[in-house]
Amino acid sequence: MENVKNKMVNVNGIDYRWPEKPVVVVCIDGGDPEYLQQFVAENELPNIQRFIQDGFAMVADGSMPSFTCPNNMSIITGTPTSKHGISGNYYLDTKTWEPVVMTGPELLRGETILARFADAGAKVVSITAKDKLRRQLGKGLDVSQGHVSFSTEFVDRCTIEENGIENVLDYVGMPKPDMYSMELSLFVLEAGIKLLKERRPNLMYLSLTDFVQHKWAPDEAEALQFYRQLDNAFGRLAEQDIVLALTADHGMSDKSNDLGEPNVIWLQDILDAKFGTGEVTVVCPITDAFVAHHGALGGFVRVWSKGNVSAQDIISHISVIDGVDLALDKKTACRMFDLPEDREADVVVVSRKDVCIGSSSSLHDLTGLQGHRLRTHGGLTEARVPMILNRPLNAAYKARVAGEDLKSYQVFDFAINGTQ
Amino acid sequence: MENVKNKMVNVNGIDYRWPEKPVVVVCIDGGDPEYLQQFVAENELPNIQRFIQDGFAMVADGSMPSFTCPNNMSIITGTPTSKHGISGNYYLDTKTWEPVVMTGPELLRGETILARFADAGAKVVSITAKDKLRRQLGKGLDVSQGHVSFSTEFVDRCTIEENGIENVLDYVGMPKPDMYSMELSLFVLEAGIKLLKERRPNLMYLSLTDFVQHKWAPDEAEALQFYRQLDNAFGRLAEQDIVLALTADHGMSDKSNDLGEPNVIWLQDILDAKFGTGEVTVVCPITDAFVAHHGALGGFVRVWSKGNVSAQDIISHISVIDGVDLALDKKTACRMFDLPEDREADVVVVSRKDVCIGSSSSLHDLTGLQGHRLRTHGGLTEARVPMILNRPLNAAYKARVAGEDLKSYQVFDFAINGTQ
Repeated sequence: MENVKNKMVNVNGIDYRWPEKPVVVVCIDGGDPEYLQQFVAENELPNIQRFIQDGFAMVADGSMPSFTCPNNMSIITGTPTSKHGISGNYYLDTKTWEPVVMTGPELLRGETILARFADAGAKVVSITAKDKLRRQLGKGLDVSQGHVSFSTEFVDRCTIEENGIENVLDYVGMPKPDMYSMELSLFVLEAGIKLLKERRPNLMYLSLTDFVQHKWAPDEAEALQFYRQLDNAFGRLAEQDIVLALTADHGMSDKSNDLGEPNVIWLQDILDAKFGTGEVTVVCPITDAFVAHHGALGGFVRVWSKGNVSAQDIISHISVIDGVDLALDKKTACRMFDLPEDREADVVVVSRKDVCIGSSSSLHDLTGLQGHRLRTHGGLTEARVPMILNRPLNAAYKARVAGEDLKSYQVFDFAINGTQ
Repeated sequence: MENVKNKMVNVNGIDYRWPEKPVVVVCIDGGDPEYLQQFVAENELPNIQRFIQDGFAMVADGSMPSFTCPNNMSIITGTPTSKHGISGNYYLDTKTWEPVVMTGPELLRGETILARFADAGAKVVSITAKDKLRRQLGKGLDVSQGHVSFSTEFVDRCTIEENGIENVLDYVGMPKPDMYSMELSLFVLEAGIKLLKERRPNLMYLSLTDFVQHKWAPDEAEALQFYRQLDNAFGRLAEQDIVLALTADHGMSDKSNDLGEPNVIWLQDILDAKFGTGEVTVVCPITDAFVAHHGALGGFVRVWSKGNVSAQDIISHISVIDGVDLALDKKTACRMFDLPEDREADVVVVSRKDVCIGSSSSLHDLTGLQGHRLRTHGGLTEARVPMILNRPLNAAYKARVAGEDLKSYQVFDFAINGTQ
């Protein structure tokens, strides 16, 4: 048998050691540090509390914009958004002037940690709640070699050829969850626990969805119920002699007023009134196919000009709107938020913590909120995320944390290289 | 004797336990995390490395603007700048239109941790390199009660009445250091080591100066020489059975071009050319009496309008200047940087990491650089600082770090409440 003890796998410029034990990374979608803060203080999460005391735990910088796709790609490639290129769920193709969905693997730059390890002979598993992430997470991964890659969303359609596994509902022993349910995330964890036990892969990535956090604040019973179940599942993962790493793609902020109505800036309407219809286009890069719980409203939007209005004029008009924190030109936004310039708009707008930004009021459907307060993300105020390991850092990584900012895209690096 | 084990001291809303051992907090002025990162990687700092491995170490948020006075006041009061009010070394009094030095204790809002502990019966010591900090650090402290408060700058003038100590040069056994020397900081530490040994105060605050970091980058021999001496002094403090906490007031960035010339935006000149002389006033709040090593240039300036030019017009003109990261109105700046509104300008400007901002080129003297590259601070890129404790966190504070951002103004809280 090959001696793998000293084998290194280089992915996008970072050297990863060969994992002595399985490494499992969980991305708690929308897992704002506030949930942990509250439930840990209430002694509700015994497993996570043990990781915090015996392992390593702090708050890290997530990638901007604080959306699901950019951060999952940061985590799975170990690189910032400027390198992997997935800077939102959508960007505007200025040749056709149409928004382009950014979920295709061909748009992802660089390689995934999973695919490179698979090439090097590791067994890997990737499970995600929503299918929009699956293809990018599985980029370059040949599932015919015994790897697994599927989403709960399409769990009933899994095939050996496409997903490396079939009959997953029977295998996990749970019914197919609704797209708007906490089970959509819990299914990911149960599948991971069973695959870990039976196949013991070297690397496993489990990416949840943020239905619960969009809907319920830390002080609501449903949020606690969800986190208790997460904690229980984390305990069953950790007891299998693994390195377990927990992080989040982004946080979550309440963006409603005292009456419970959403605080929304309808930016397309404001800019059309100022510059005339058709001159500038506002894109909300939070948009995906399932928006009932946030109405495609987030804390970060992009503005493209057709050419007649300058970025300076747009910035000047936007920066004084109450509820806007930052209105930045492309170059400044890319430098400050580590974004790829070739996919960036002329102007980037970030809202205040309690405010979100939409395009035109006629284009957003808020009936899906069903009386809930609007909770969403995208801005700087949702770009801080937990990073928790069930094992303590080694000496070299303790020194790293003392001298540099921790980025959530380093979670595989810390889990693999920082604990052995 | 009074049972002090369960005694609590409340300072500005935070409860502090009674320290079982002396607590010594050192503020390494200009102690950018980069210095630690480099010298720890080179195994040059054995004592700090021991603290990192056996105690607690990470990078924390400093207060904005990343200057000396605001951050020292944040540390000594345990509050953000919005509460203690010292938002720079200078602010503009719009009644007289004159800049006001912010070093007077009457401008400091709230109480210092030292003074409240002294009131409660503790013995406290405060030593600072430059005298500009001494009066605010000593606010409310009655040195006739056995406490000590002095600066290296005026070490030869210390009296029992004013400083609680006299003949300090003889006491420490070092000659009076030059204002532009690394000994100005080292004297603070030597005095602290001796006072700790002989008087064993309950709390001690030692605040250094950033002459070395302004002048030398982490890869220059003088910087290493200074940090070796700091590390040696920290070792001699730590061996006296204390809780030792190390932090910094701000970081330090190189702000010169490839030719070694400073990258400066002369903002007053730019605004005068646009709006006419006398309409707006640029204040550089880094200014103090000793500016040879930075020429009063920093990464954060304030702009006040006399009333004819709107904040929006000023922002619009400034935000497109190459080298400006942020140009914010008063309200946004105060919200984002936790600043006091009543002392804030109409517009706040933050520069890019490699650029600094001055007022009018005729008002800054750069001859003091003597051929050195300009290294300075003030902006967001210098607002991340180390926080290191020689003892591990207790369970409650490990949980805190897992759920919330660490602020350098919490260093006394962590040192006192987080380690016992």
